[in-house]
Formats: sequence, C-alpha cells, structure tokens
Amino acid sequence: MDKRPLGIFDSGVGGLTVVRSLHELMPTESLIYLGDTARVPYGNKSPQTVIRYAREDSKFLLSKGVKAVVVACNTATAHALEVLRRELPVPVIGVIEPGVEAALKATRNRRVGIIGTQGTITSAAYQRALQARLPGIELVAEATPLLVPLIEEDWLEHAATQAVLEQYLRHFREAGVDTLVLACTHYPLLKPMLAKLLGPEVQLVDSARTCADFVRGALQVAGALNGGPEEAEIRVYLTDVPVHFTRMAERFLNRTLENVEVVSLESPASG
Amino acid sequence: MDKRPLGIFDSGVGGLTVVRSLHELMPTESLIYLGDTARVPYGNKSPQTVIRYAREDSKFLLSKGVKAVVVACNTATAHALEVLRRELPVPVIGVIEPGVEAALKATRNRRVGIIGTQGTITSAAYQRALQARLPGIELVAEATPLLVPLIEEDWLEHAATQAVLEQYLRHFREAGVDTLVLACTHYPLLKPMLAKLLGPEVQLVDSARTCADFVRGALQVAGALNGGPEEAEIRVYLTDVPVHFTRMAERFLNRTLENVEVVSLESPASG
Repeated sequence: MDKRPLGIFDSGVGGLTVVRSLHELMPTESLIYLGDTARVPYGNKSPQTVIRYAREDSKFLLSKGVKAVVVACNTATAHALEVLRRELPVPVIGVIEPGVEAALKATRNRRVGIIGTQGTITSAAYQRALQARLPGIELVAEATPLLVPLIEEDWLEHAATQAVLEQYLRHFREAGVDTLVLACTHYPLLKPMLAKLLGPEVQLVDSARTCADFVRGALQVAGALNGGPEEAEIRVYLTDVPVHFTRMAERFLNRTLENVEVVSLESPASG
Repeated sequence: MDKRPLGIFDSGVGGLTVVRSLHELMPTESLIYLGDTARVPYGNKSPQTVIRYAREDSKFLLSKGVKAVVVACNTATAHALEVLRRELPVPVIGVIEPGVEAALKATRNRRVGIIGTQGTITSAAYQRALQARLPGIELVAEATPLLVPLIEEDWLEHAATQAVLEQYLRHFREAGVDTLVLACTHYPLLKPMLAKLLGPEVQLVDSARTCADFVRGALQVAGALNGGPEEAEIRVYLTDVPVHFTRMAERFLNRTLENVEVVSLESPASG
C-alpha cells in the first residue's frame, strides 16, 4: 500500500481525460496533474523541445512526492518516454503502450488506423510498436491537427467538425480498418461523432481510458495502490491560465475543478 | 539613413506575412525575424505570459542590433505593446494601430467587424482603439480560433474551412458590417475565401499589409530608411523547428527560406 499521490502531466487540458478515467477506476488514489498550458500544444514541436518540456514537467511532479509519473500526452510519450524511464527514480507510464495493447485486442482483420497530432504520427511510435507486436499488420496513420482546436471550441456536433472528420476519415474507410486508435487525449470527446460516422463495425481505442486501466494494473502488481476507503484529492497545477480554461477543463474532467494553482517551470531568459 | 536591420517577432510563422509585406514595400531594408515556435501559439495564453514572452523576444532582437521592433503578432501587440514601448530603447510598432487606421478609412456605414485569436479579442484592444477614434462606431468582435490551424493545414479552399467560416461570419452578416479587420497575421492567406463569402461590399483590412505601410511611414518620418540600392537580407530565427515548418513558412513568406537558425530564449527550469 502506497499513500503517495500519482503524478500526471500533459501539455494542456487533454490529459484531464486520463485523470477522469484514473479517478473513475481508482477513486481512492490522490492525483496531482500538471498542465503545461504556457507552452501548449506539444503536438507541433520538435522531439528535442518536447523532451526538454517533459523533463521539466516530470521534475515538477517529483518535487510533489509522486509515486509514479503518468505521461498523459501522446506526443510527450512518443518523444520522451524512454528518456524519462532512464532518468526518473519512479515508474513512468505513457499512453502508447496501453493503446497498442488495446488495438491488438480489438482488431479482427489486422487493419488498424491511428489518428493523432503531427508529432505523434511523425514519430511513428504507435506504428513501430504495433508492427513489432504483430508483424504483417496493416496500418494507416494520419495527423489530424484540426481536431484539438475543434474540441477546445466545443464544436462536438457541429457541421464543420463533421466536414473535417469526413476528410480525415477517408483514407481509413478506403483501407477498411476495423479499429481506430485515438492517439491524443483530447479525442475521447469526439467519440460520439466518430462512432456515428464510422459505424459499429469500427472499434475506437480511447487512449485515456486504456492508459488508466494500465496504470491500475501496474500499481496492483507493485502492491502500490492506496487502498484507503476515503475519496482522494485531485490537485491541478498549470503553467498558465488560458481564457475559458475552467469551462474547458470541467468538460474534460467531467467534474468541478477546485484545487487549481499556477506555477512557473521556466526561468527568465538570459538573452 | 540607417543601415541597421528591422526586427520583427511573432509567436510562430504568421508574422512572416508582415515580413513579406515589409520586403515588398522596402526591398532594401534588412529584416531579422524571430518566430517563437517553441511556445506558439500566444493567442490562447494569459496576458502575463504573453508579456513575458514578448519581452524575451524583443531582448533577442535588440541583441542583434535592430533599429526598431515590429510586433507582428496581434495577441502580443494587444497585451504587450505598451510595456515594450516603455522598456525598449528603440521604436516599437504593433499591428493594431495600423489596422485601426485602415478600418476607419474603409468603413462607410460605421459598422466594423473584427476577427482574431481569443487573446486579441478578449483584450478588446481593437475595440477600445476604434471606439476612442470614432465614438458611436458599431463593433462586432469574435474570436475565431479554428482559422490558424486550418491555414496551417493549407485547407484554404476546403469545404470544412468554408463551413467554419460560414459559422463564424454569421454574426457579422447579421450586423451588416461593411469592413472586417483580419486581426491575426495568419488570416491574409484566407482573403480569397473571405472575399468570396462576404462579397465586394465588405472591405477586408489585412493587418500584415497595413502594418508594413505604417512601418515605412514611420521610418521615412524618422529619416531611418536604409535607402541603399542593393537588395537586403532576410534572416529568420526560430525557437524550434516544427514539422513541415519550411513548407508552411514559404507559403507565408512567398519565397524560399535561406537563413534560418534555431535559438533558445529560455533557461532550463530550476524546479
């Protein structure tokens, strides 16, 4: 039994879908979330820059005494997971491994699609992991950078969102995938429209939910679940408070935000 | 006559439309551009964070010996122009003043629309400036956060872009504006579709072009134009090299990028 909190970080608000799933699965675990909202998004930045940010995010969480670090951001997992695992003194869990496992379980025809940010797709992290586990698997991967802003606009049922998705989904339909990995922690909010457009024959793999399942399994195996009977605390740290943040965050988290604090990770420039 | 270069900064690639206009108007001026691509975008960040970034960007340009600083970013102009004017030892020109002047010249019915990022619109910088100059003017201002990602996707003639614009333009049509200020340096790339949707009775104010006009006037008045006969140099500094950057930047700049260098403005975190 380990009463220390779990640490979770993301570039912005998307990772709150992971927090939500973690809390639903393990209501007695205390959660500390860091959203790097001053530098969001990570999805269009280079691997070097994302690694630097991920190190700073993890260092902050460690300073809060967390028992494990959950990288609730596909881009940061793609670029920085291995570095963090080498460097951090606690277990580090990303969103890709659980998503890959879930996709392998879901597919029947071995044709799997992946949508995510430019950074996640270009890194080929999902593609490599899926191919390593199931040689011969057919993959269609496409960067879908418009989805995050559409979700943040809350246009979840809008004609424009449908037009964007129709365009993005064309390749996946042509390829006949039976499984689509939502490789971005924002995307679970689009599941209703994706399900409507793709129909019941395509399984959607929600990387937020699968990550939470994976974390629970890992803590169980390590005997590190809290296990206390009482409901635990969710604490949110941000590097900036963007306009409409609270409204947006509460949609992602599906509950009221109480403990929010703004912190700084950067020192002033030295010129 | 002043042979020193002009300094221009923006959060990312959008400000290259200002560089393009400056170069077209004043081909003998050397231009130094800083795009803070490691922290792009500024449009969804708080005023305090944008001011901090704008100070760091300006400090970098000053270290390169510029004769003036052009804030080629509407969000940074809205939040940081006054601070920079107080603090910097060279003239500072933003994109808002020129846009306001151009809108006042363009409107006949005194109904003016403004589209921009969340930060620019929430700051009310355009609204305040227009109202101060023309009391009684009717203003419709709306944040249009999906336009930057659509432009960066290069979906300039796409059905999804049209669906997004139809939604965003509804209020402006209902209000009968005869002038629309494009208060974001990305937006000039959408002028063809905007013109098609709004028709010839609505004037589009391009803040990149009007800013360049304004800079030329200011340099002329101060006797600070370069005036040399030879074509001058354009030098681009970035804080990160995002995926597809070169392709995207060349569309904004309308020429090949030659001198690009990656620089760091931040020191590592101190935890």
